[in-house]
Amino acid sequence: MSKPKVFEKPNGVKDYLPHAVEKLRRIEQDVLECMRRWGYEQILTPTLEYYDTVGVASSTSDQKLFKLLNQRGTTMVLRSDMTAPIARVVGSLLKERDFPLRLSYHANVFRALEEEGGREAEFFQTGVELVGDPSAEADAEIIALAIASLKAAGVPAFKIAMGHVGFLNGLFEETLPGLVEAQEVLKTCLLHRDLVGYREELRKLSLDADVERELEGILRLRGGQEVCDQALALSMNKEAQTAIRHLCEVWDVLEGYGVQEHVMIDLTMIGDFSYYTGMTFEGYASHLGFPVCSGGRYDNLLGQFGRPAPATGFALKTTRILDVVEDAVRVPGRTLVLYTANRRNEALAEADRLRSLGYATVTKRITDQDELAAVKYRATVTDTFSYHGTDYDNLLEIGEE
Amino acid sequence: MSKPKVFEKPNGVKDYLPHAVEKLRRIEQDVLECMRRWGYEQILTPTLEYYDTVGVASSTSDQKLFKLLNQRGTTMVLRSDMTAPIARVVGSLLKERDFPLRLSYHANVFRALEEEGGREAEFFQTGVELVGDPSAEADAEIIALAIASLKAAGVPAFKIAMGHVGFLNGLFEETLPGLVEAQEVLKTCLLHRDLVGYREELRKLSLDADVERELEGILRLRGGQEVCDQALALSMNKEAQTAIRHLCEVWDVLEGYGVQEHVMIDLTMIGDFSYYTGMTFEGYASHLGFPVCSGGRYDNLLGQFGRPAPATGFALKTTRILDVVEDAVRVPGRTLVLYTANRRNEALAEADRLRSLGYATVTKRITDQDELAAVKYRATVTDTFSYHGTDYDNLLEIGEE
Repeated sequence: MSKPKVFEKPNGVKDYLPHAVEKLRRIEQDVLECMRRWGYEQILTPTLEYYDTVGVASSTSDQKLFKLLNQRGTTMVLRSDMTAPIARVVGSLLKERDFPLRLSYHANVFRALEEEGGREAEFFQTGVELVGDPSAEADAEIIALAIASLKAAGVPAFKIAMGHVGFLNGLFEETLPGLVEAQEVLKTCLLHRDLVGYREELRKLSLDADVERELEGILRLRGGQEVCDQALALSMNKEAQTAIRHLCEVWDVLEGYGVQEHVMIDLTMIGDFSYYTGMTFEGYASHLGFPVCSGGRYDNLLGQFGRPAPATGFALKTTRILDVVEDAVRVPGRTLVLYTANRRNEALAEADRLRSLGYATVTKRITDQDELAAVKYRATVTDTFSYHGTDYDNLLEIGEE
Repeated sequence: MSKPKVFEKPNGVKDYLPHAVEKLRRIEQDVLECMRRWGYEQILTPTLEYYDTVGVASSTSDQKLFKLLNQRGTTMVLRSDMTAPIARVVGSLLKERDFPLRLSYHANVFRALEEEGGREAEFFQTGVELVGDPSAEADAEIIALAIASLKAAGVPAFKIAMGHVGFLNGLFEETLPGLVEAQEVLKTCLLHRDLVGYREELRKLSLDADVERELEGILRLRGGQEVCDQALALSMNKEAQTAIRHLCEVWDVLEGYGVQEHVMIDLTMIGDFSYYTGMTFEGYASHLGFPVCSGGRYDNLLGQFGRPAPATGFALKTTRILDVVEDAVRVPGRTLVLYTANRRNEALAEADRLRSLGYATVTKRITDQDELAAVKYRATVTDTFSYHGTDYDNLLEIGEE
């Protein structure tokens, strides 16, 4: 392995220049403000967690965790999501606070190996967790808030696909009883949205024609509430039926929120986290092949942190949203205050006044009259002008008297 | 070593609950806005950097760096400050942009082992770098902006101690020529503000009485501009004289900013970073034993990233400032909208209206009339009331008709 060049940074991580940071910060603030209005309180947890607690509880596969040792030889990880750390806090620092708890966050998370596929090893998420409420209203609130957050972020057009892990579990258990491996292979195809692969795997299983038709039929179970009725007819399995009834209730509440135009029931939806136990969803923006948000219900995770409770939540993939959101409105430009040494106090006082009015203001002592004349010329011939490579909108000259 | 308990997090790192996050976010936003008004543009760099580039260039001692390996076996570090990463960006992504560059950041940084002394292993800094300007005006701008930033953060009372590494280097070279080890021992005492230790070390050296008196005398070189005059008389060494003349110029400009009441010249000041080459300073808040900000000039660091340039900057120790700043003004409280199932749409629409007005609003379907009566009672007898452990200020009931 060769030594990295001085200007290199590790693969899979990024520098954000001022233009991008401005946009990222605008999205972050608007989304967090949206979450505040829905009664969510922001928390902050450390970047480093113990591998044996949060690392193991997170649904990130072991090889994707960034690991390091502390000086006592205990393995630590860089957090790979915020759900497990928040579960830890709910079970410890917040253990005296009654449910439901509504918590929000904006944080960078880490996934090793992602860089190999050109994906980012460090990226930002903005999300919420609603802990202690098992109701369909809670699931609907999470989806409605995801929609409100995507709008607050400025994502121009998007659709939420909503499913339920109980439906597939029940259906597969009914049609492929005991065939754990086959069930896993099919689920993996659905997880990766690989419908061709799913059909191939079905064929390989040499099932009864009826069963094969049924399992292929779920690929068409996408749409509005009518999908629930079709699904109820499809499987008599109790877990599947309970799942569908819950989704129907969630849909009802979403109609109450008036957001059903943004939602599609898709019973092939499997959340990308192994800890999901109920409703799951993903949000897709037009022209983007990957989700801009994902979420779902995880009723077994809190128990791992000593405080069993139902929970549901979502995260916006904030860094990805950067690419589909309009640029920030250009803030008023910078003012350059040029002065000669004998009038410095005046110039600094004027800069102070401009800053107190909110204008970005830079001061510069001038020694060379030619330089001053050149800047004045540039300032008069164009709206914005460049001085030493930086753009300014206004020139103020406080020079020799 | 024993397995950590489920609710444990690594030593030296912290969870911040909503109350603290609100305060931290308020400080972060106000300070970054202050920096924007001074013409600084925000950038964001990755948490992970290569050890051989940024890790080595940072002035954090090797044992204090958090290290980990990527899958190719290259050593990476968690950034220990933002100055070296910004130098890397200035030498790469921003290499086409002319000087001076004014950049700001808010970031978490990492120091291993700090936890041993009860100090934090992960903490936040908010700071700026002014790259490409060697002038006394640039150094004064950095100090004046540090003062403005501390005010924006809400630090009630503070003092900046300003020194210059060239003065001590020159004085020691003149009085202890070639005694590198003795010089280092004395500097270490000054770095840790260990004046008793400094005097003891001086005595151990068995110096001429004149020299000992001179080296002890610098402990009294603290105050306003008069200190510069005393210092000029103290050492004829060229480096020391140049350093003092530069500090005098910086002081002049600071008078122009009208901030001299916040500044004290302290010629025993050594910055805590080995890369400082000129003026250095630290800010102290009343009643706090450690600095709330630190900064200085570092003219040799950029050269390590392929673009030699003078530079000066500072960082606020944002996490520490949390403890000396007043609590955030309490935002308008939360409204609880209780509803019965038959009037859900009405209730959700009303919640939507309240949120659009900026009120934090939570909805809850009620099934039990007794529960509703109890909540109404609590809402009438106190200004704020608690429902399931959460405090609300307003109750809105949309129930059976």
